Amino acid sequence: MTDELRIAMIGHGFMGAAHSQGWRVAPRFFDLPLEPVMQVVVGRDADGVRASAAKWGWAESATDWREVIERPDIDVVDIVTPGDTHAEIAIAALRAGKHVLCEKPLANTVAEAQEMTDAAAAASGVRAMVGFTYRRVPAATFARDLVAAGRIGDIRQVRAEYLQDWLSDADAPLTWRLQKDRAGSGALGDIGAHAADLAEYITGQRLTSVSGILETLVTERPLLGEGVGLSGTASSERGAVTVDDVALFTGRLESGALASFEATRFRTGRKNALRIEVSGSLGALSFDLERLNELELYDATQPGTEQGFRRILVTEHDHPYLSPWWPTGHMLGYEHGFSHQVRDLVVAIADGTQPRPSFADGLHVQRVLDAVQRSSGAGSAWTPVD
Amino acid sequence: MTDELRIAMIGHGFMGAAHSQGWRVAPRFFDLPLEPVMQVVVGRDADGVRASAAKWGWAESATDWREVIERPDIDVVDIVTPGDTHAEIAIAALRAGKHVLCEKPLANTVAEAQEMTDAAAAASGVRAMVGFTYRRVPAATFARDLVAAGRIGDIRQVRAEYLQDWLSDADAPLTWRLQKDRAGSGALGDIGAHAADLAEYITGQRLTSVSGILETLVTERPLLGEGVGLSGTASSERGAVTVDDVALFTGRLESGALASFEATRFRTGRKNALRIEVSGSLGALSFDLERLNELELYDATQPGTEQGFRRILVTEHDHPYLSPWWPTGHMLGYEHGFSHQVRDLVVAIADGTQPRPSFADGLHVQRVLDAVQRSSGAGSAWTPVD
Amino acid sequence: MTDELRIAMIGHGFMGAAHSQGWRVAPRFFDLPLEPVMQVVVGRDADGVRASAAKWGWAESATDWREVIERPDIDVVDIVTPGDTHAEIAIAALRAGKHVLCEKPLANTVAEAQEMTDAAAAASGVRAMVGFTYRRVPAATFARDLVAAGRIGDIRQVRAEYLQDWLSDADAPLTWRLQKDRAGSGALGDIGAHAADLAEYITGQRLTSVSGILETLVTERPLLGEGVGLSGTASSERGAVTVDDVALFTGRLESGALASFEATRFRTGRKNALRIEVSGSLGALSFDLERLNELELYDATQPGTEQGFRRILVTEHDHPYLSPWWPTGHMLGYEHGFSHQVRDLVVAIADGTQPRPSFADGLHVQRVLDAVQRSSGAGSAWTPVD
Amino acid sequence: MTDELRIAMIGHGFMGAAHSQGWRVAPRFFDLPLEPVMQVVVGRDADGVRASAAKWGWAESATDWREVIERPDIDVVDIVTPGDTHAEIAIAALRAGKHVLCEKPLANTVAEAQEMTDAAAAASGVRAMVGFTYRRVPAATFARDLVAAGRIGDIRQVRAEYLQDWLSDADAPLTWRLQKDRAGSGALGDIGAHAADLAEYITGQRLTSVSGILETLVTERPLLGEGVGLSGTASSERGAVTVDDVALFTGRLESGALASFEATRFRTGRKNALRIEVSGSLGALSFDLERLNELELYDATQPGTEQGFRRILVTEHDHPYLSPWWPTGHMLGYEHGFSHQVRDLVVAIADGTQPRPSFADGLHVQRVLDAVQRSSGAGSAWTPVD
Repeated sequence: MTDELRIAMIGHGFMGAAHSQGWRVAPRFFDLPLEPVMQVVVGRDADGVRASAAKWGWAESATDWREVIERPDIDVVDIVTPGDTHAEIAIAALRAGKHVLCEKPLANTVAEAQEMTDAAAAASGVRAMVGFTYRRVPAATFARDLVAAGRIGDIRQVRAEYLQDWLSDADAPLTWRLQKDRAGSGALGDIGAHAADLAEYITGQRLTSVSGILETLVTERPLLGEGVGLSGTASSERGAVTVDDVALFTGRLESGALASFEATRFRTGRKNALRIEVSGSLGALSFDLERLNELELYDATQPGTEQGFRRILVTEHDHPYLSPWWPTGHMLGYEHGFSHQVRDLVVAIADGTQPRPSFADGLHVQRVLDAVQRSSGAGSAWTPVD
Repeated sequence: MTDELRIAMIGHGFMGAAHSQGWRVAPRFFDLPLEPVMQVVVGRDADGVRASAAKWGWAESATDWREVIERPDIDVVDIVTPGDTHAEIAIAALRAGKHVLCEKPLANTVAEAQEMTDAAAAASGVRAMVGFTYRRVPAATFARDLVAAGRIGDIRQVRAEYLQDWLSDADAPLTWRLQKDRAGSGALGDIGAHAADLAEYITGQRLTSVSGILETLVTERPLLGEGVGLSGTASSERGAVTVDDVALFTGRLESGALASFEATRFRTGRKNALRIEVSGSLGALSFDLERLNELELYDATQPGTEQGFRRILVTEHDHPYLSPWWPTGHMLGYEHGFSHQVRDLVVAIADGTQPRPSFADGLHVQRVLDAVQRSSGAGSAWTPVD
Repeated sequence: MTDELRIAMIGHGFMGAAHSQGWRVAPRFFDLPLEPVMQVVVGRDADGVRASAAKWGWAESATDWREVIERPDIDVVDIVTPGDTHAEIAIAALRAGKHVLCEKPLANTVAEAQEMTDAAAAASGVRAMVGFTYRRVPAATFARDLVAAGRIGDIRQVRAEYLQDWLSDADAPLTWRLQKDRAGSGALGDIGAHAADLAEYITGQRLTSVSGILETLVTERPLLGEGVGLSGTASSERGAVTVDDVALFTGRLESGALASFEATRFRTGRKNALRIEVSGSLGALSFDLERLNELELYDATQPGTEQGFRRILVTEHDHPYLSPWWPTGHMLGYEHGFSHQVRDLVVAIADGTQPRPSFADGLHVQRVLDAVQRSSGAGSAWTPVD
Repeated sequence: MTDELRIAMIGHGFMGAAHSQGWRVAPRFFDLPLEPVMQVVVGRDADGVRASAAKWGWAESATDWREVIERPDIDVVDIVTPGDTHAEIAIAALRAGKHVLCEKPLANTVAEAQEMTDAAAAASGVRAMVGFTYRRVPAATFARDLVAAGRIGDIRQVRAEYLQDWLSDADAPLTWRLQKDRAGSGALGDIGAHAADLAEYITGQRLTSVSGILETLVTERPLLGEGVGLSGTASSERGAVTVDDVALFTGRLESGALASFEATRFRTGRKNALRIEVSGSLGALSFDLERLNELELYDATQPGTEQGFRRILVTEHDHPYLSPWWPTGHMLGYEHGFSHQVRDLVVAIADGTQPRPSFADGLHVQRVLDAVQRSSGAGSAWTPVD
């Protein structure tokens, strides 16, 4: 009989749906050492969170997160609220002796992220993990494995980009994601963070300095009138966009290799193109989240006339995370990363080992973003990540 | 408060996992008029099916399907057993007044499929549906919608193929899928059925006659020794492969247009390539299950210099089935078709309407397969589908 | 000092432009053992052929081919007239002791092709070659080399298709290509011939029997009024299309493997898609003329997790025909095949060896087409190629 | 009777072969107002240049360029020597009253490029053009036309990269291209120049300031021993690489939009990937020289569910430069750009109009490269292009 692991999820927006799916589905496919129980979901609006609990299959709902994290029956606190609330909740949960899974970005500021990392280090016997789930797309994990196994040799260059286009329309409304006080930053923190984390994860190297520029292409947008979120009616008044639409930066990895980055919400026609290409002395790897079941591998050790980027369908049972899923050639989707995250977190909790990405990893990404912001403010001057 | 709909699933192999995922996940994303309850899963081996129930989240397990389908608390019987058992179970379930969802192929013979279709017609107040889930990949549904809306004009030609390669290795073992008495047929019935159904679904037309050839490329294979299924140890003895490895056929649609088909387990490097291209007087559509979130559309009404196949990411909220899922650009996978199937079946049950594909649709596909088989036996002579 | 080889080209339509480019360019890149001299171009209309000579750089023009092929200074007769005239010219040229290069199809009937082949066999000391230039696209040649070297093992299946769409418009005019007395056949002879030849060339095997169907989708089209060719004005009268728009057929190769074919002018959006995929026990090869500098290779001997179709840019100096051209990654186009054809023909003439494809090869393709036509007339019955 | 235009080509390396092919082929396809005559090719080595003349079809060879440019029968001087000699030859030719076509880069320094531009401005009645031939790949020209016609709206962002991998091997020899005194710069000037020019050409906007970094990844390489060029034998001694292997930079266009650039010889597996994507308020365009017959167009004015990047085969008669070539779907290659360049230059000479790219355009690109170099030396500080 497997012991239970009781989960409280704080927050219930889009990310709540994704995390719920992870908690729900992971135990049905993976043999987990502990059995996750979807115990309670927490939100500010009692009716709203009750509806979410019913819809997503949480046993209870609640409105006071402080109360919930103190409950002795709760083992794991899963934080999916906006970034400006992460630090307070995570630190309290850690101090209450709970394992914590915190959505990215770890926090909106380096200072908060540092406090959280300190709290995680101080908390004994509990695990803290940050939710960069794209590491757990099997093709991305497999890319990391191939680099680690030396299949592409010394890394020469990295190109990482995260391209979206949902702000191309200059009349798209001024949501909270475009306001610095709420969102912390724009494309940089929202999607550039993923590009930076994935580059560091796959290469196994950290960025040590950066030079970059942040840019707001459309500086005023219609205020939201009635309704909430993207579906709200736009009003005729306009307000200032206070975050970046585009972030372009270059970074240096520990080995000295250069990596160049682009995060943008203005690349018309690109919907969710988190792409990375790692070029090495023995080969290269290329990945695009818009084709997430594929990894392209170039093997420069093959005969010269037979070299080419090969499209590997990462759906074999021997590929990372694949064995419990479907037969070869049956595709996974976006949400499977959340099941893989649950799997790895539960195993780490059972084993008493530190899961990755840790809060320290999340803090490091935050420092990268902060250095980019400072570089942008200093005319793209090279800025150390520290 | 939504009424419950209690499900019994008969069978618990690979398809059982997929159907369970559909029942589990659909209500978490779609607003269903009835609430599916995963009540009982049935299998011959008590221990095995008990483990499946625990793993997949069914409330109970049982070993006698006849007993289960008579239970008054059961509303829906979901059949995922091998094809040679479909008729008996489905007919009994329909007679017991249960709604039936039956995995494809509807049956291994036309005669059985006919009996099932008759039973469905005779059963009053219950719904019967066959599980060609690839109709419910959003890109395929959208292709059908575009054809129905006249976007590609008169259909000129259809090419449909389902390419796999898992028998390329001549030493792959002789599983039940390669034995005619168990599997009915080989590539033709297993995957050619999908190609035929998808072609008929997207075009909105039925095949009226066919000419084709079935071929077994490797006629003897190692018998399975210890263990079961593909993972069993191969023995040194060999047995005869009694089904087709490859099916090639041409068919005529109701409009007179020709459609050509290929179903094969020997197209090295192709893992799950269910592909269809429909060419019309105003445009063309191209789909490949290995890139299931994409549909290629060619619009011949655009200016001549600007025409080209465009890769549509079928992940917009206005695309079929997409609205409750993730934001634009977040990919769905293989299993989502099973949630869509559950959604449509539950709605049809609530509304009292006939869901498609119906048993009559399944019977028709069976007749196509049968006609191909007869044509192959008659030197590829054109053979009516009747 | 290299000896000269004086060329007479009979005909000066579209193919004349392509052959002229071959004769003009080949000696500038390849070190040829003989120096081709573009001596005389022959056409029926004195003014027209004089203009062609000036435009394409032939030293002279003439209107009587019989006179020209008897000229003692002429070494090679290059025939680019319509198919119904090939036999007479080629046979006369061979009898006059000239080397002959004849555009495909070798002839419009098997009987004529047979006579030509007999004439070539009887002619001593002269070479006869038929112009299936797609064999000389480097990627296709390289595909043949890989198959010959055993890189894909035993051939399991072949798929070859030649897809165009220029007849999709039902009001496209009734040109000579749509009239059986002029063109011999439609899609089958014009482009299906290329698909058949390429399949035989790459596999190194001949087709021994076929089953197929020819179809005319639009049976009446506007007659051409003023003007000539595709650019002529369409009149309001309509005439009967007497050739096939689509040819679908299946053939058996010498090894017993099945190959399926499609040749069509109605696959909307496909402009010049001569595609072939050869699947073998150790790998597979895939080629598409719309991306003629690329060859996709699947190597099934690589580790299971690293297999995938790899896109080889066939632009390395060690690829066939590539060494005298541009640096790696600089693309060749359609017309380069004609330079490669010239190169091989000139080398064969100098060496006194038989170039391929020979008239016997062209005759064989003609027999395949003829067998398809007979099979179509016999309800797709399997028909031997003989 | 068309007047002749007598050409002298100075230099006879790889670019000489390409230019010769342009002069040879253009008049055979395009109706030119003047008839180019390949009169004389000039090189330092009498035997070598005599062989080139014979091979490429120049009437004469010569060793003294000064003498040649003074010849009254010469109308055009085509310069394909290394960049450090361009200024002297071009200025002398212009002063001698000859039209000049000068290979890119215009010069190795801004000062020289300025002098050349001044000389071109001062020369009356003669034309001066710089050879950025990639502007004349039909897909690139068509991209420019679409932007100019407003089809993609306001330009939001540009990404341009030129990726090669021929230095990935750390033991590739130290050729002249890796020595600053000969080559001027490395990836930046050789291929980054193309990326910059193409971005400016397609957008119709100039770069006004840049921030970037140049990097040498392999700082020492084997000296060349016997033999010349890439095919020479590597010696065991090593020498310093004095140019950049990689150039990464960001620039601002006149409209204020950001464009990011990468030029590298270390992107393993990328052979000749000059790629550009232009994102606008109404659509986007994407081009890759490795698939030079294709242009991808995204039209954001189509219905939301039908938007996608469409692959246009730029082989229609109505596409730029296409009408005299082959039928739809028949591909062009690398060298066709040189024919198009000849066509445009000859037309401009006949018309007395200034062809583009002019020396002023070439000077501007040189200033961009210079600004990148200065920015790199100043810690990536933003540097005006002036």
